[in-house]
Amino acid sequence: MIAESEFIAALRRLATHPAARGLLDDTAVLEIGGTILVITHDMIVEGVHFLPGDSPADVAWKLVAVNLSDLAAKGARPIGILVGYGLSDTEWDLAFVDGLGAALAAFDIALLGGDTVAAPAGAPRTLGLTALGEATGPVPSRAGAKAGDELWVTGMIGDAGAGLHILTGEVEGGAHLVERYRRPAPRLAAGQALAPLASAMMDVSDGLLIDAHRIAAASGVRVEIDLGLIPLSPACIDALGESRIVRLAAATSGDDYELLFSVAEGQGDALLGLAETLDLPFTRVGRFIAGSGIGLTDAGEDIQLPSRLGYEHGQERISRKRRFPTQSS
Amino acid sequence: MIAESEFIAALRRLATHPAARGLLDDTAVLEIGGTILVITHDMIVEGVHFLPGDSPADVAWKLVAVNLSDLAAKGARPIGILVGYGLSDTEWDLAFVDGLGAALAAFDIALLGGDTVAAPAGAPRTLGLTALGEATGPVPSRAGAKAGDELWVTGMIGDAGAGLHILTGEVEGGAHLVERYRRPAPRLAAGQALAPLASAMMDVSDGLLIDAHRIAAASGVRVEIDLGLIPLSPACIDALGESRIVRLAAATSGDDYELLFSVAEGQGDALLGLAETLDLPFTRVGRFIAGSGIGLTDAGEDIQLPSRLGYEHGQERISRKRRFPTQSS
Repeated sequence: MIAESEFIAALRRLATHPAARGLLDDTAVLEIGGTILVITHDMIVEGVHFLPGDSPADVAWKLVAVNLSDLAAKGARPIGILVGYGLSDTEWDLAFVDGLGAALAAFDIALLGGDTVAAPAGAPRTLGLTALGEATGPVPSRAGAKAGDELWVTGMIGDAGAGLHILTGEVEGGAHLVERYRRPAPRLAAGQALAPLASAMMDVSDGLLIDAHRIAAASGVRVEIDLGLIPLSPACIDALGESRIVRLAAATSGDDYELLFSVAEGQGDALLGLAETLDLPFTRVGRFIAGSGIGLTDAGEDIQLPSRLGYEHGQERISRKRRFPTQSS
Repeated sequence: MIAESEFIAALRRLATHPAARGLLDDTAVLEIGGTILVITHDMIVEGVHFLPGDSPADVAWKLVAVNLSDLAAKGARPIGILVGYGLSDTEWDLAFVDGLGAALAAFDIALLGGDTVAAPAGAPRTLGLTALGEATGPVPSRAGAKAGDELWVTGMIGDAGAGLHILTGEVEGGAHLVERYRRPAPRLAAGQALAPLASAMMDVSDGLLIDAHRIAAASGVRVEIDLGLIPLSPACIDALGESRIVRLAAATSGDDYELLFSVAEGQGDALLGLAETLDLPFTRVGRFIAGSGIGLTDAGEDIQLPSRLGYEHGQERISRKRRFPTQSS
């Protein structure tokens, strides 16, 4: 979508304040009175970021979680949120508030404010949220990866993508995968623990490959990813199998909300210790070298990049996923 | 609209953090590391807060200005904004960015971040903005007015309402009034100067009467307003005349974005000195007494309240104004 890239380029020319990080990072990072504030605003749209049939409580959860995931990737402790809400249907709206309350309680954050307007009749629901957090130490950007650094990821990749395909009826699988699509878990504790170690960090919202490529591009290095190392959950393998095409799909499907980060070589033991403490797996999936772009290997063999590395703005997020390969393909 | 009041009541039950001020104030007021942050999120909707024919630059201005007006009412110095934007039409969108840049420069604030999504085709434009500021001293709420306090307002009331009626072709009048509708001027310097003096303060977005009633209700007192004191500009009088019905319309039409504040008796000289320094008139329009509700007088005579005190959520903002009385009515 040329229109959107032009629009964002025009916005970037306005974002000259260092706190904006050139609009290239996941959040703004604003130092004020000795405190480092981390601030993000993300919108979610029905039919793009969630399914029309998703429950209001799930949508409220996702709206909060995707924003907190951005704070997690900067190692920030979340403080509170402001919600921009378009009223549509009383029953749905009130159930959304209940779900919002559950999410606020789960993450121990405050509802600080917001605004409500009447939503245009018949239009897909569009919800906005601003989340504020406080840095707990260094705030990694996307731009700090160096040649020689390793690329690591938290948790499992592809579960949410598989969950979406279960919801759209393309594959069969368990409730766990659907939950991973509908109720992403922002990696707040991991983000705070990793921020001092990571040379760059972001969350995986659009797909591991495209997001790794974004870190590489921002950092001025090349990333090489070993597809065989992408961590797939047993539930995902049960639903989709374990072929190369499934691994490619998992690495490009997005909605994982795991943390993707670069660290200097030789941190493996420290990372695995942290992972054990947090009870969350960390997996090395690639490395950074001098150069630019992204390369992909599988079992030591160079393989061709897929035509899409993940979700980009302007693409049909959900209908694209309808082309996810099933085990029979 | 029962649905919306139920929704907001449900949200209020979640907003237990003191920074949220019970969602009863214009902004959140969050102390963090010794700094007092003032944060607001307001949305504007085509056909509700602006006209479909308004230029993208005017819409960008208004989006920024209505949010900064909330910061002004809390005496805050604005720092920056995050924008939630639904892309629709490339030419319009890029002109919006130009207008946003002009507003950022005019108010000397930073674009910190935001998000863009594809807007639903054919739906009215809905734009969200989060503004952050820093308190420069005390942060007046709506709840501090006391019996005996006077009610004052900055600037002129009714210009924007008259401007809207010029735009909708109901009355004739000058470009100044249209400009006052399309390009509200947030009273930032006045807000910072008044915050230490005001016992309560808010901006007039929905109409002087309804907003004065909100201060009275939040403060647990009654407000009595002298309609004859409502400051009308010469341009407004030229366009609409100076009858009681015009004054009532001015006091209920909203979109003024002036500051409405209570002060203890005997501050008149200090206020008029400040007004002169700021080159912005301040006018005493009423007083607070023990009791509840709102009363209206004109030339010493009690008069009946209009059926509407101003704009309330869920009402048709623009079509309501189409019923504005003209000089001939």
